[in-house]
Amino acid sequence: MIQTKVLHYFDHNATTPACKEVLESLPEFAQAWGNPSSIHWGGRQPKNILRDARKAVAEMVNASPLEIIFTSGGSEANNTVLKGLLEYYQTAQFLTPEQRKRTHFMSSEVEHPSIMKTMQHLKDLGARVDFIPVNRQGQIDLKFYEEHLSEETALVSVMFANNETGTLFPIKEMAEMAHKKGALFHTDAVQAFGKVPVNLKELNVDFASFSGHKFYSVKGTGVLYAKKGNNVTPLIHGGAQERHRRGGTENTLGIGALGVVAKRAPMIAEKAKALAVLRDHMEARILSEISEVTVTAGETPRLPNTSSLVLKGADGETMLMSLDIKGYAVSTGAACSSGNPEPSPVLLAMGLTRDEAQNSLRVSLGWDSTLEQVDSFVDTLKTVVDRLRSLNDDKGETCHV
Amino acid sequence: MIQTKVLHYFDHNATTPACKEVLESLPEFAQAWGNPSSIHWGGRQPKNILRDARKAVAEMVNASPLEIIFTSGGSEANNTVLKGLLEYYQTAQFLTPEQRKRTHFMSSEVEHPSIMKTMQHLKDLGARVDFIPVNRQGQIDLKFYEEHLSEETALVSVMFANNETGTLFPIKEMAEMAHKKGALFHTDAVQAFGKVPVNLKELNVDFASFSGHKFYSVKGTGVLYAKKGNNVTPLIHGGAQERHRRGGTENTLGIGALGVVAKRAPMIAEKAKALAVLRDHMEARILSEISEVTVTAGETPRLPNTSSLVLKGADGETMLMSLDIKGYAVSTGAACSSGNPEPSPVLLAMGLTRDEAQNSLRVSLGWDSTLEQVDSFVDTLKTVVDRLRSLNDDKGETCHV
Repeated sequence: MIQTKVLHYFDHNATTPACKEVLESLPEFAQAWGNPSSIHWGGRQPKNILRDARKAVAEMVNASPLEIIFTSGGSEANNTVLKGLLEYYQTAQFLTPEQRKRTHFMSSEVEHPSIMKTMQHLKDLGARVDFIPVNRQGQIDLKFYEEHLSEETALVSVMFANNETGTLFPIKEMAEMAHKKGALFHTDAVQAFGKVPVNLKELNVDFASFSGHKFYSVKGTGVLYAKKGNNVTPLIHGGAQERHRRGGTENTLGIGALGVVAKRAPMIAEKAKALAVLRDHMEARILSEISEVTVTAGETPRLPNTSSLVLKGADGETMLMSLDIKGYAVSTGAACSSGNPEPSPVLLAMGLTRDEAQNSLRVSLGWDSTLEQVDSFVDTLKTVVDRLRSLNDDKGETCHV
Repeated sequence: MIQTKVLHYFDHNATTPACKEVLESLPEFAQAWGNPSSIHWGGRQPKNILRDARKAVAEMVNASPLEIIFTSGGSEANNTVLKGLLEYYQTAQFLTPEQRKRTHFMSSEVEHPSIMKTMQHLKDLGARVDFIPVNRQGQIDLKFYEEHLSEETALVSVMFANNETGTLFPIKEMAEMAHKKGALFHTDAVQAFGKVPVNLKELNVDFASFSGHKFYSVKGTGVLYAKKGNNVTPLIHGGAQERHRRGGTENTLGIGALGVVAKRAPMIAEKAKALAVLRDHMEARILSEISEVTVTAGETPRLPNTSSLVLKGADGETMLMSLDIKGYAVSTGAACSSGNPEPSPVLLAMGLTRDEAQNSLRVSLGWDSTLEQVDSFVDTLKTVVDRLRSLNDDKGETCHV
């Protein structure tokens, strides 16, 4: 097949391209094929790769290397904290009676499926779970949170930034509130990683999850930050890897690549500013040149690269496919729910109507996005929306796939 | 540092070098960086990579592609089956009262830590667990097995081949015995994968675990085979990946690489024969040229590449390090327990004394091992053992590090 059209990628919240530095380093990491646990020559180079990557990742998020646990991704990190803490409180010896009573978990209504479904599962296993509501701007109901936090709360897990709208949550304040009740605090920081600086010491959270492929590295590697002194039962029991916290031979290729991007962290703050300018320019053009458009969570602190739009009368999936034909990659919600005909649960939880959620489009820019790309995208979006709306006028109804 | 000595790798049960075909394919897989769940152009190439790899792996083990669940490795696959089945029987709706009673698990005494420790954990969670003893040859006590199997048994998990001695277990027979009681059967086939042909349909097991890096692919990717109709609760809850059986964005790089080696499966039978000849030659020379050596489990069906030796009066760790200095990589047991001063629990379970276990060495050959390498290894081992034994004679005791 001859690909003649120019491809523009505006779906960086789904995944990011592996950067040049990562691609260039893969052969070296792949050649270091030894088992890092081996005590002969075969283990030395892979062991060094792990140590370097652990140090780089720790520095990036202002943590100690001992607090970094490499996982297969953000979903595994999220599952590890939630299930691991429930099991720890169920099975560990030497717990106080107060600790044993901690069977209450809290989360927001707009978490990623790897938190939402795991919380549902904890319920099946006997835990009590509360989901904190959010308002139309995606802001968390802190009053509900305060009222439901108690001496029985084991863990609160609230995302750093929402994957669909980019909404940022008051993590530091929420962690402090949890700590006052003796509860631990976890933040799923997968969407924030690489998009805005994350300083774990300052946030004072107990656990945090990250994913390499959202930050220009390869898929299959993530990180669980576990603050010194916080124990959870391992999700993967086995060998002594990751100081007995995660069994399984280490993915040296993926971990090495994560170390490479972690070293690019000093660029994040500057890139974030540039992305915000680009995103704001895009939204300003869309709002002025396309009628009946709203920006979801536009009035709240947001990730600098994310734009969640409601375009009245234009079906999201149809827009996505029309844009795809023209070479533009965007999405209607979380990639892992793609193909699901149901409107985004995140947008519904924020109080959007089903029609509004169905007419939504997520545009997420990346480090390589340019003004020229963004302008050509807006031009194309205008054409696509005009055409869909005119089709609706003919049919007298909203067009759904 | 200038590396002038020739390196010889005889530790293929710990891990294997990534083969040329895998190294050559990595750039292509890394360039296909899209999220396989995306429905725009970015998702198409990675989706094809997953489909091709799934088909190749399924064909390799005689299964249907729908029965293949990609994981981050063998340890994750093992944890998924054991914990997932316990949780399934605890939480699933629509189970019969007979199914709810199935809280008994069985395994052998010589399993990998990812089975042993997970079984211990199931015990902490309330399950009843029996470990089947093995004899000096590593052969399983089928009488004990039969006597302890019952209508309450949920799952039996016995490895296909032991990682330290290579002992092969009567999986087909044991699966049949489990099925007669209505129990499910899992085999940890990590050590067999790529070393001997594995035909899952013929074995008629319900679950099986595999790991890519034991078969000349990269680390961080494994497989859980789950026979059609067998449900377990996911270890990683999240998105709809792997047909809702394993959440998390797929590691396309690692999965693609696994597909590449799976296509080399037709070579396994022939390679196995050649390896057995090489291994037998090595053992014959060692037994005839070094005094007071025994081959552990030498009289039982074994993997063709594995040799577990007891060399009286020569400490395993010291031998390993002396050989390492001369460029030879071998091991004293499972790599993931390396650095642990305790003798191998597998060898102790087989009835070896602590001294015998301490004086053990595992030599595991690979597809690229040559007669020349093996002969030079035996020559070097002779020198090393002679020197250690003469040191012992001077000290009048066994030399331990």
